[in-house]
Order: sequence, then C-alpha cells, then structure tokens
Amino acid sequence: MGNDKKLVEQITSQEKDFAKWYTDVCLKAELCIYSGTKGFVVLRPYGYALWENIMHSLDKRFKEVGVTNVAMPMLIPENLLLKEKDHVEGFAPECAWVTCGGEEVLEERLAIRPTSETVFCDYWNETVKSYRDLPQLLNQWCSVVRWEKETRPFLRTREFFWQEGHTLHATKEESHDFTLKMFKVYEEFIQSELAIPVLKGKKTEKEKFAGANATYTIESIMKDGKALQSATSHDFGDNFAKAFDIKYLDKNNQLVYATETSWGFSTRIIGAIIMVHGDDKGLKLPPNIAPIQVRVIPIRTTDDNNVNKAKELMERLNKSGLKVDIDLSDKTPGYKFAECEMKGIPLRVEIGPKDIEKCVCVLVRRDTGEKIEVKLDNLELEVKRVLEIIQQEMYNIAKSFLDSHIDTALTKDELINKMNNKKGFIKAMHCGCEECETALKDETGITSRCIPKEQENLSDKCVVCGKPAKYEVIWGKSY
Amino acid sequence: MGNDKKLVEQITSQEKDFAKWYTDVCLKAELCIYSGTKGFVVLRPYGYALWENIMHSLDKRFKEVGVTNVAMPMLIPENLLLKEKDHVEGFAPECAWVTCGGEEVLEERLAIRPTSETVFCDYWNETVKSYRDLPQLLNQWCSVVRWEKETRPFLRTREFFWQEGHTLHATKEESHDFTLKMFKVYEEFIQSELAIPVLKGKKTEKEKFAGANATYTIESIMKDGKALQSATSHDFGDNFAKAFDIKYLDKNNQLVYATETSWGFSTRIIGAIIMVHGDDKGLKLPPNIAPIQVRVIPIRTTDDNNVNKAKELMERLNKSGLKVDIDLSDKTPGYKFAECEMKGIPLRVEIGPKDIEKCVCVLVRRDTGEKIEVKLDNLELEVKRVLEIIQQEMYNIAKSFLDSHIDTALTKDELINKMNNKKGFIKAMHCGCEECETALKDETGITSRCIPKEQENLSDKCVVCGKPAKYEVIWGKSY
Repeated sequence: MGNDKKLVEQITSQEKDFAKWYTDVCLKAELCIYSGTKGFVVLRPYGYALWENIMHSLDKRFKEVGVTNVAMPMLIPENLLLKEKDHVEGFAPECAWVTCGGEEVLEERLAIRPTSETVFCDYWNETVKSYRDLPQLLNQWCSVVRWEKETRPFLRTREFFWQEGHTLHATKEESHDFTLKMFKVYEEFIQSELAIPVLKGKKTEKEKFAGANATYTIESIMKDGKALQSATSHDFGDNFAKAFDIKYLDKNNQLVYATETSWGFSTRIIGAIIMVHGDDKGLKLPPNIAPIQVRVIPIRTTDDNNVNKAKELMERLNKSGLKVDIDLSDKTPGYKFAECEMKGIPLRVEIGPKDIEKCVCVLVRRDTGEKIEVKLDNLELEVKRVLEIIQQEMYNIAKSFLDSHIDTALTKDELINKMNNKKGFIKAMHCGCEECETALKDETGITSRCIPKEQENLSDKCVVCGKPAKYEVIWGKSY
Repeated sequence: MGNDKKLVEQITSQEKDFAKWYTDVCLKAELCIYSGTKGFVVLRPYGYALWENIMHSLDKRFKEVGVTNVAMPMLIPENLLLKEKDHVEGFAPECAWVTCGGEEVLEERLAIRPTSETVFCDYWNETVKSYRDLPQLLNQWCSVVRWEKETRPFLRTREFFWQEGHTLHATKEESHDFTLKMFKVYEEFIQSELAIPVLKGKKTEKEKFAGANATYTIESIMKDGKALQSATSHDFGDNFAKAFDIKYLDKNNQLVYATETSWGFSTRIIGAIIMVHGDDKGLKLPPNIAPIQVRVIPIRTTDDNNVNKAKELMERLNKSGLKVDIDLSDKTPGYKFAECEMKGIPLRVEIGPKDIEKCVCVLVRRDTGEKIEVKLDNLELEVKRVLEIIQQEMYNIAKSFLDSHIDTALTKDELINKMNNKKGFIKAMHCGCEECETALKDETGITSRCIPKEQENLSDKCVVCGKPAKYEVIWGKSY
C-alpha cells in the first residue's frame, strides 16, 4: 500500500489549496500537460477521449434538431473582423495575428479566429438568396485562439477546443426561438450526461456577448463555491445581417434582412467536470461520458487462472456495450486502485483467487468507495445497474451542493459578507445599470451571473446603488 | 426537362476542359465554396458530411490497431520547428507566421503547424521515460496551414484538413513495421470504402518526406491520366529522436534513442474521389461513404397519396440503417434527377401514382443510369443489394482504367512520347540519382511516383541518363 499512498500524496488536498488541487488533478490524471508553446496545453489521450465522448454525444443532439457541420477558414482578414462594431471591440484586442505567409509579408494581416460570426456572415452573404435557403443551421467543431495573459488548463488557455453553432433565420421570432432551443439542448446534455446541475438565465447588458441582443447562459457551481459559465446561446436579431448586408427575398418578393444566432460549448466544461465532482483522491467521471467506464483488476497477476478469468470478465463487459479495460501490469493492487481513483474511472471490478472459488467478483464504486460483491452470472446486469446509480447519485449530490449554496441578500454589505463566508450564488435585486456592476466587480470581484427567468421580488432597491430595482440577478464569483 | 438541361450545362465537359470540369463539380455539387480569405475554402454541409464519413470510418480502423487521438497546439515556436534540419528546410518556407498576440509583438514568432512532428517530439521528450511508456500510438484530426501560391479546391489550399498519426517505438524494426502497418490500413480503406484502386511503393530519395528515412506512398490515377498522391506513411528511424533528444530506459536500464513514424491522409482525397469516379453529369460517390446513399423522389408532389407513400419508403430505408433523404420541393422531376446526379447520390428511388398501383418503385443507379423496377415488399433488400453492386462495380471500372494506363518505356523519348499521348503511369528503370529526376521534371513535368515493391528488370539502364539502373520506378505527371 506504500505506492498507493504515494500517488494520492502527489495531489494537494482541496481544503489546503483548491487551485493547486485542480491543476494537480489535470496533470496527474493525465488529461493534459503544458506544451512548449506558452499558454497552450496538449490534450493527452485520456483527456481527448473524454472530449471525444462529449463531442459525439452533443453532436448527436445537434443533428437531431437538424444542425449540420461545416468547416470555415481558420484565418480571418482584419477588415472582415472589423465589420461589426461591438464585436470587434470585444475580440480584436485578444487576437493572434498572422502577418507573414511563407516569405511574403501580408498586405492585410489575418486573425486566427477567436470566434467565427464574421466568417459565417461572409459565407451567407454569398450563398443565401431566398427564403428557400432558410433556415441555415450550421455548426463547426474546431479550436480558436484568444491571447489570454494568464492561463489555466481547460479554464483559460490561448487555444481551446469548442463547437460554435451559427444559424440564419427569416425572422426575429425564429432566431429568438432557436436561441432558446439550443440553450435547452445544452441544459439537458449538461445535466443528464455530465451530471452537473445548472443555474440558467439571461446575461445582463454588461455581460452579454459582443454584438448580441441577448445572451443566455448556463452557470454551474464548483466545489469551492465559484461559478463557471458552461455554455452560452446568443440571439443577434439582425445586428450582424445589417453589418454584413445579408438580405433574402421573402415570399412576397421583398428583400429583407435575415436574423442570426450563435451558441458555443468548449473544453472549459472539462474544468467543470473536475471541480464539480472531483475529490482528494482525484478525478470522478460520470459513467455516461467516462472514456473507461469499468476497469478490471486481477488481484494476483502471477496466477494464470486469475488473469484469464479477469480477461474473460473484461470481454463479457465489452461485449455488453460498455467501455472496459484491464490492468495487467506488475504494479501492486493498491497502486492500481489508487490509479483508478485518480483517473476517476466510475467502477472497478476486482477479482482474486478466492472470488473465483466463490464464483463472485467485487465492484468498487469510485464515487462512494462502496464495495459490492456480485455473482459472476449477474455481472453485466449488476455493472450496468450500478453505473446508472452512480450517474444519478453524482447528479443528486451536486444538486444538493448547488441548492445549499444559493442565498439571498438585501444590502451590499450582506451580499459581500455572505459571499466571503459561504461562497456560492447570491440572489439580489439590481437596477440594471452597467456602472453598478462594474463598481461591484472592481471592489469585490463579484459579478452578475444571470437574470433568472423565474423572478422573485426580494426588494424594491438595487443591492448596489439603492435606486429602484429592475430585476433579480444571481451574483457570484466566477472562473 | 428544360431545367434539367440547365443544371448539367452549368458544368464544363471533361473532354473540353478537365480542370474546369473539376472546379465546376466542386462548386455545383456544393462540396465547397471560395471564402473571403484568399486561398482558403469553406467546406459546405455536403462536403463536410463526406469528410465526416471518411473520418469516422478511418478513425475506427485506427482505433482497431490501438491508436488513440490527442490534440497538440496549433502554434509552434520557431525554435522548435528549426530543430530538425531537413524538416525545417522542407516546411519553413511555406509557414504562416503569427507575430502579434493581442497588442503585444511576440519575442519569438510562432508558425501555424504545417505538420506536427516537432510538437509530438517535444511532447515525448517530456513524457516518455522508460520502455514501459512505449509504443506511443497517437493521432490527431485537425487542419494545417501551408502558404501555397496557387490553390485549387481540395487539391491545394492554404488550410487543409487531415489526420496526422505520430508514433514512437523502441527499435528501428518496430517503427519500420508500424510504418507499413498504417500503409496497409490506408490501402485497404481507400480501396474498399472509396472504391479507388491504388499503386503503391516507396518514394525515391528526392521525393521522400523532409526528415524521413523512407516514405511509402499510395498513388491513384485520375480520369485525365494524372497521378494523385493519396496517403503517405513515413519511417523516421531515430532522426527526430536524435534532434529532440528522445531517449528512454530500456529493459537493460540503458538510455537509448526511440524511433518514430508519421502517416497522413487529407481532404485531398475528396479531389481523388471526384476525379476517379465523376462524369459529365457531376459527382459520383461510392455508396460506402456517401452522405446520402439514397434519395426518394415522389413523381407527383401535389398528390398526397404519392407524397405519403414516398415518405413511407424513406422511413423504411432509414430504419434499415441506410442514409436516405427525400425531395419534396416544387422543382420538376427532371430537375430533381439532375440534382441527384450532380451530387453523386448513388441511388435514387422514383415512385409515382402508376407505380403505387402496381406496388413497385424504380431504382435508378447513378453510376450506370440503369433503371430497376422492384416490388415494394423487397425494397430494403433490393436497395442494399444494388448499393453493394454499385460499390463493387465502381471499383472494377476504376481498376480497369488504372490497369490500362500503365505502360513501360526503355528510353527517355519513349517515356515522354507515351506520357504525352496516353497519359497515366509509365514503368521505367532509374539510376537512383536525384539529378536525373530533377532534370526530367524540369524538362517534361514528369516525376517519379514510387518504387514498386515487386520489381521488374525492364533494362539495365536508367531511362534518363543511360547509366546503370538501380531499380524500377513508376513515373507520372501528378497533381
């Protein structure tokens, strides 16, 4: 068990230093590693497999609502990026710029896409002529680059992976409805596959996406009480269509502006998975998206019979449609168990000579540590049953945590005190003006997370400035 | 039928101008469109769906041999790129360079990856310590940028999509074997899924990949007789390991250099699919990778009964696992047929009121134009049977074309004359020196395509210089 201890000792405890714990888990679970390019990470096989599972599952949901994938150019001419005023102010300061191609200095510099609204608009300007061409429901899976000053794995890196959906519609009603439709797709995916409960609502004017009429956001709570924005869906109305002159002939043969949405979801979510579910032993992955759902560990690897029986179990489970592997290395069982835990493998199956005699094996849950002896005859059924329970209970626990970390405040002092003591989300009224939000953020680091759809009238006054309140806002400190 | 004609008239015939025909098909079949970024194209939904099918099918084959996916940084510091001498000479002149990040001028410029050997080596230098860490069988699906002067859709664009596999091994034997293993994976995939017959062999010293000991290539023949390099697999031995100091502790506790391979396959192959199979009516896709395998067309769209029956057929075929859609638009049947042909949909199912009375429908093959009346009861079975025949016959026809376009030459004049008259591949002996190849290429545009494994001794003299021959080479003009 000496080795076992060593592996866990390599990560800092959450209580001691949550930020350090987070980075330790990213590296020790082999999700990623820092690369030779400053601010860029390598997604290692285990981390990329996790992202692949997320992609496949989400892509399927996109296709079910009629979205198809495309690939737009990675480089955007500066003039194209400058066409929509708010958008360029939001993104130009953090672009990486290509100024030389081969040995030639470019006449116009090109940005590596920080996001692709402008490129999709340019494409539609060329291809959309009539109402028959609408709606356009497009998406791309790609990476984007934003020149961040401080970086942290998954949460903020200069290059990150994501999908960006962009759609074009005939009317403002249609783009509004579609914005909410994709918002719902994200919500269901995050809750049911990632076992992460969500808070959702509209962003304030200050926090909305550069160029959008409205931004809808899904916020999740991390174990340190901080918020993480997990997915956003933007309704642009005809803002971009006007800037890019995207008109179509409607059924009455009139040229009218089209309307647009965009919606995105990135590898940031891996940061959320780590910080919502993880513990001092490492990562804890929800079975639905775990690259390895079950690992089989023969207790005595020098015993051929034990090894063969373990292989047989692996094959049976693989055949039943689960993602299973086996650890046949010469490490000690204790070390292997610790490794399973570090990597967040939802369930391990232990089998030793005595178990074989009794025709049983032992399932060990990563989430609770519980050991369950099962008859070999019932293996597949039992493993699937336990994985479903794990998925559900991981969600329940995260939901309790979220629910117990939402409070209310009537005054600024109360807001600040509660935020400092308990962390989490705090509901409070807001006058709606950007200055209040900026002042509060500068003073305390607290930001508005969203305006929830179900509004409560906690008081008549803005929690910051005391002027008449416009709506209830959920506040928090965020990643 | 007026509309019908119009659509076909939009593409130039192959005989009139093959290059123009090619571009017309790319655009009119809506595979891609030129973008606002010079030298970059947009992969439109239909083109990207084709690439997705190729990716999924090939990725499955990679995973079956134990390869896992990762994601490496898109940007490479100049110093890292400069580490391997031959490699940098091959790629540095065509890199796109990032010189500004946000508002900061970078101290060291960064290349957008033209290929990622250097990045993988840097990663292994950090992560590989012992023989237990080997082999490393990695791959990434991504886009790369090379600053080409002249561009053509799929064949040569400044950004293109590909997979690049990179593996690290313990010995030169292992890297050699793995290079050939992946070469075989490509060959089988290209032949069985894309219905493209291949010529294969080793590249000459002049044509091999920058930094490799040996490059294995798969060459295909286009309908204009020109060659297209469809996939390559490179054996680096320990060249990169020495440049990047990648050593591991072997079983005897000795520090030794690792060995490496890389292998790539890109959206260029879409160019090959177009030019191997296409005709004057447009694209012709092999059923195994067609985004739409079958399109159902009701002859009378104003007749509810006809439309409902057509929908029923679509649903039945979809349920049987095929990729099927339906054309319910108000275009004429003739126009719809032409559109099916332009997009290369392997099979269309026509059904009209008279067919419904007789309980039949008509299958129309894209490859031959053949019409087959089938009983509705037998629909699924018949459609699958015909799709299999199409896949096989498309391969057979392409194979006959390849076989009838391989000739031999004993002298330079014969080589040039035959190449000018008949096109295709020509087998001829070669002394092995780079100067001969360069001279021939400069004079005639003819290049060595590969050194086939099965060598014939056609003569004792080099076809170019007349000096003693070293081996037989297959020559051609290439894209």
